[in-house]
Amino acid sequence: MCASKVVRFRGIKPEIRILGLDDGAFLPHTAGKADVVGVVFRGGRWLDGVMRTEVTIDGLDATERISSMVTESPHYEQLRVLMLSGITFAGFNVVDIRELFESTSLPVIALTRERSDLEGVRRALENLPDRAVRWRSVQSAGDVFQVKVRSGVAPVYVQVAGVSIGDAEGIVRLSCTRSGFPEPLRVAHLIASSLSKAGFRLSVQE
Amino acid sequence: MCASKVVRFRGIKPEIRILGLDDGAFLPHTAGKADVVGVVFRGGRWLDGVMRTEVTIDGLDATERISSMVTESPHYEQLRVLMLSGITFAGFNVVDIRELFESTSLPVIALTRERSDLEGVRRALENLPDRAVRWRSVQSAGDVFQVKVRSGVAPVYVQVAGVSIGDAEGIVRLSCTRSGFPEPLRVAHLIASSLSKAGFRLSVQE
Repeated sequence: MCASKVVRFRGIKPEIRILGLDDGAFLPHTAGKADVVGVVFRGGRWLDGVMRTEVTIDGLDATERISSMVTESPHYEQLRVLMLSGITFAGFNVVDIRELFESTSLPVIALTRERSDLEGVRRALENLPDRAVRWRSVQSAGDVFQVKVRSGVAPVYVQVAGVSIGDAEGIVRLSCTRSGFPEPLRVAHLIASSLSKAGFRLSVQE
Repeated sequence: MCASKVVRFRGIKPEIRILGLDDGAFLPHTAGKADVVGVVFRGGRWLDGVMRTEVTIDGLDATERISSMVTESPHYEQLRVLMLSGITFAGFNVVDIRELFESTSLPVIALTRERSDLEGVRRALENLPDRAVRWRSVQSAGDVFQVKVRSGVAPVYVQVAGVSIGDAEGIVRLSCTRSGFPEPLRVAHLIASSLSKAGFRLSVQE
């Protein structure tokens, strides 16, 4: 798929299926895994499903793990867009949103409350192995755009792959039903945070 | 607290905080634990929080584990009612809803899609240790009442502790926003089910 390809939305349906993704708590700088939770939302209204995967803390597998979780989900055919809580998961496991768009064929919106400090990220990466790979993923996310959700509410900041800024703005605004923050990301955060509350867990594959 | 005491609701607020509780997947008849997830809902609209605990498969600790999770939660002061997906969790770990009401001071509504087969439950308990204790908890839940949610939708069945049937009906109807089933229980089920999808997990307390 051509990297400059963009999915065009002919009007954004109020119940567009959005997958909101966030990571759970983890012990920084340890050799473990962190939960990543995906919640399927119809627009900003109804939760339709929940999925979960794990990514390596400060690892390099976030893009691939998220991509597999999405494409193997029974919700995949219904999904129209992925909404990520920023591009770094489980520490500095950077998601390459362009690669994620190409492997899932779903547009990606990475969204944060604060404008990301690119210089700070670059410095932090210096202490990690494979920093060239990580930096490439950071750069792949492209420019940061400010989105005004509505008056009286702080703006949010987005990076996009496979979708125009205009469409991304429309999707973000539509999903901010309960607050000035997209409902799929608000709920993904609540669920992901709850998983680790009773202590960090080991995983045992069947 | 007197067992016959009932919390009276002077009009049920549309955003009444309901905790919906359901269990996750588990391997039946094994000596493990199953997840129990609680979701805080404002009426049938917004998810305000998620909590999680674990109970022993076919154990006797569900009442106490759920009670501790609720009373130790930062949401406790806001909660007005507990809504359980039936009275049995993780196999035949029976919740004593009267005891749960007394230990949390929160009214309890145990709700199922089908009218429970009391005779079937009694027979199943015969294969388990401590069947007298379990049977007492089953009986403690009292009569089963049919609740008509609205026309064109299958009724649900409830058992109550600490709340009148009239108030329980009002709370159930108010919470059935998205479907003919209460939103706090629908969402608790989606979240609890997702936890075990990637394989059953061992827990490690910090």
